[in-house]
Amino acid sequence: MQLSEIYQLVEEDLAKLESRIKSVSEVDFSGVAELLDYSLKGGGKRIRPVLTLLSGRFYHYNLELLLPMATAVELMHTATLVHDDSIDNSPIRRGRPTINSIWGEDKAVLLGDYLFAKAGEFATSTGNLRVTRLFTQTLGTISAGELSQSFDAFNLEQTRDHYLGRISSKTASLFSLATESGAILSQAPEESIKILKEYGYNLGIAFQIVDDILDFIGTEEEMGKPTGSDLAQGTLTLPAMLLVEHGPEDNPVKELFNNRDMPQRDKQKKIKQAIELVRNSSIVKQCYEVASDYAAKACHNLKLLPDNPSRQALKDLADLVISRKR
Amino acid sequence: MQLSEIYQLVEEDLAKLESRIKSVSEVDFSGVAELLDYSLKGGGKRIRPVLTLLSGRFYHYNLELLLPMATAVELMHTATLVHDDSIDNSPIRRGRPTINSIWGEDKAVLLGDYLFAKAGEFATSTGNLRVTRLFTQTLGTISAGELSQSFDAFNLEQTRDHYLGRISSKTASLFSLATESGAILSQAPEESIKILKEYGYNLGIAFQIVDDILDFIGTEEEMGKPTGSDLAQGTLTLPAMLLVEHGPEDNPVKELFNNRDMPQRDKQKKIKQAIELVRNSSIVKQCYEVASDYAAKACHNLKLLPDNPSRQALKDLADLVISRKR
Repeated sequence: MQLSEIYQLVEEDLAKLESRIKSVSEVDFSGVAELLDYSLKGGGKRIRPVLTLLSGRFYHYNLELLLPMATAVELMHTATLVHDDSIDNSPIRRGRPTINSIWGEDKAVLLGDYLFAKAGEFATSTGNLRVTRLFTQTLGTISAGELSQSFDAFNLEQTRDHYLGRISSKTASLFSLATESGAILSQAPEESIKILKEYGYNLGIAFQIVDDILDFIGTEEEMGKPTGSDLAQGTLTLPAMLLVEHGPEDNPVKELFNNRDMPQRDKQKKIKQAIELVRNSSIVKQCYEVASDYAAKACHNLKLLPDNPSRQALKDLADLVISRKR
Repeated sequence: MQLSEIYQLVEEDLAKLESRIKSVSEVDFSGVAELLDYSLKGGGKRIRPVLTLLSGRFYHYNLELLLPMATAVELMHTATLVHDDSIDNSPIRRGRPTINSIWGEDKAVLLGDYLFAKAGEFATSTGNLRVTRLFTQTLGTISAGELSQSFDAFNLEQTRDHYLGRISSKTASLFSLATESGAILSQAPEESIKILKEYGYNLGIAFQIVDDILDFIGTEEEMGKPTGSDLAQGTLTLPAMLLVEHGPEDNPVKELFNNRDMPQRDKQKKIKQAIELVRNSSIVKQCYEVASDYAAKACHNLKLLPDNPSRQALKDLADLVISRKR
């Protein structure tokens, strides 16, 4: 299946999702409405809500419960992006100027808070306490992960476990919320809930590793933001870690991290050097192998679920997460 | 009753509350633990959780439910303060340097997010969907209020209704969550839930008006932050509104708001002039009358609740909210 075929499976549901998301920006205060509208029309792939919708199709499919949860998941994701961009002073995201670059940091912080709140309202509107609790726990996990990442910025003394812990918190936790909540809301048996939760978790790890690879090998056009932005923020991702471990002694990543206050021009030069070194080494291949292992792990137990088009879609989605270019 | 007597009523509960709040800072990552510890030891009055604890004492008093909710309410309050200070670049709060001034804005944003999440976890841990839903709605109301305030900054064209709408969102909504949730969790009849909710709402309005008065007439020592900070942020509060309406034509508030980019020294001079004008006019008295009306309104229906020490405490608390100096 291509991505378009997977999305076709949930096409009607997705149209309803878009209209729920749109409804969030329908507020009286015109300044706030404009801000919300801009942030919600970001043109993201909606992969997380699609996971909720697909995961809810194995047992008692109930769109009235899945839709608000899928909306909650997407709004939480949007809120974290708005806050991340503000913290990182990122000028551009998905090819468009960021909220902070247009409206300033103060509006970005408040908008993110508002989106978190709306996400929480959608989650509670399922009337299901278990998914509501999962929702708040996931928000805690994500924020804790972002906090740790912030404290670890420009720190070279990080292990593979550090890295996995961080991407587990900041990405895999939300993917696993997406799939687990879909399973719970369709009254899946506990064993199936566990399988879908673990699928989401491992897919999330694979997704983030690929994200971290693309920050080295993607083009700005494909990515919608500058390459090398992780290094610029002092975030040590898997490709950078491998470069520090196996690269030359006069390593641009080491130099960059040990001299975080170097002039902007020198910084850019070091980042470019690091990108070149990664591209011309076996690091990219090694990282893809790690990501593929997680994608395979994600799919391993799917065979225990009822055989239906959603099961095939989840399987194919794992392949697409690896081969994606943006 | 003095404040100390009111607090004595819930002394044991409050000790347990403090230990719940403290538990939030017990995390593995030492940098994050330090940050949490600092933010949670702010020395606030804990008035919101006290309201939850008192409101839960009229029917089926159940500390196992009231405690997590009271903790949720206090953590949400702390989170909003952390974000507000960061947005306003405030250097000092309750006599201590703010999180943003010590750790920077990025940490303040992420810490606030984490505290919102933890607050949500405590609210859901009551196992009560109704209070959980109220919690997320209140977070939405507060963020929407903060967003409107931010868009309204330095805008002189605001009516009394604007002002009341804003303080209703940013303050009264949380006070009413505090009392309403206490009532719900103690299985109060709907009529009593409504009475306690409205008590909280009107008390919150009174509280915020007094806050806005104190920003003109308090001393930095009493307030733990510089006076005139609302004017510095371009927030038009009731005293400033009355000064614009009734003050001289060459009004320092008008000048300040119409020339928001004036040099810092001139700004400080205008703020000082505005403070002097308010202090030497009947504006303070007029504002206190409005606040007292809301405090009286808050108490009006308390007589319909069962007669117990908590009822007297709520009544006396309304008086103390008016007479407080910080």
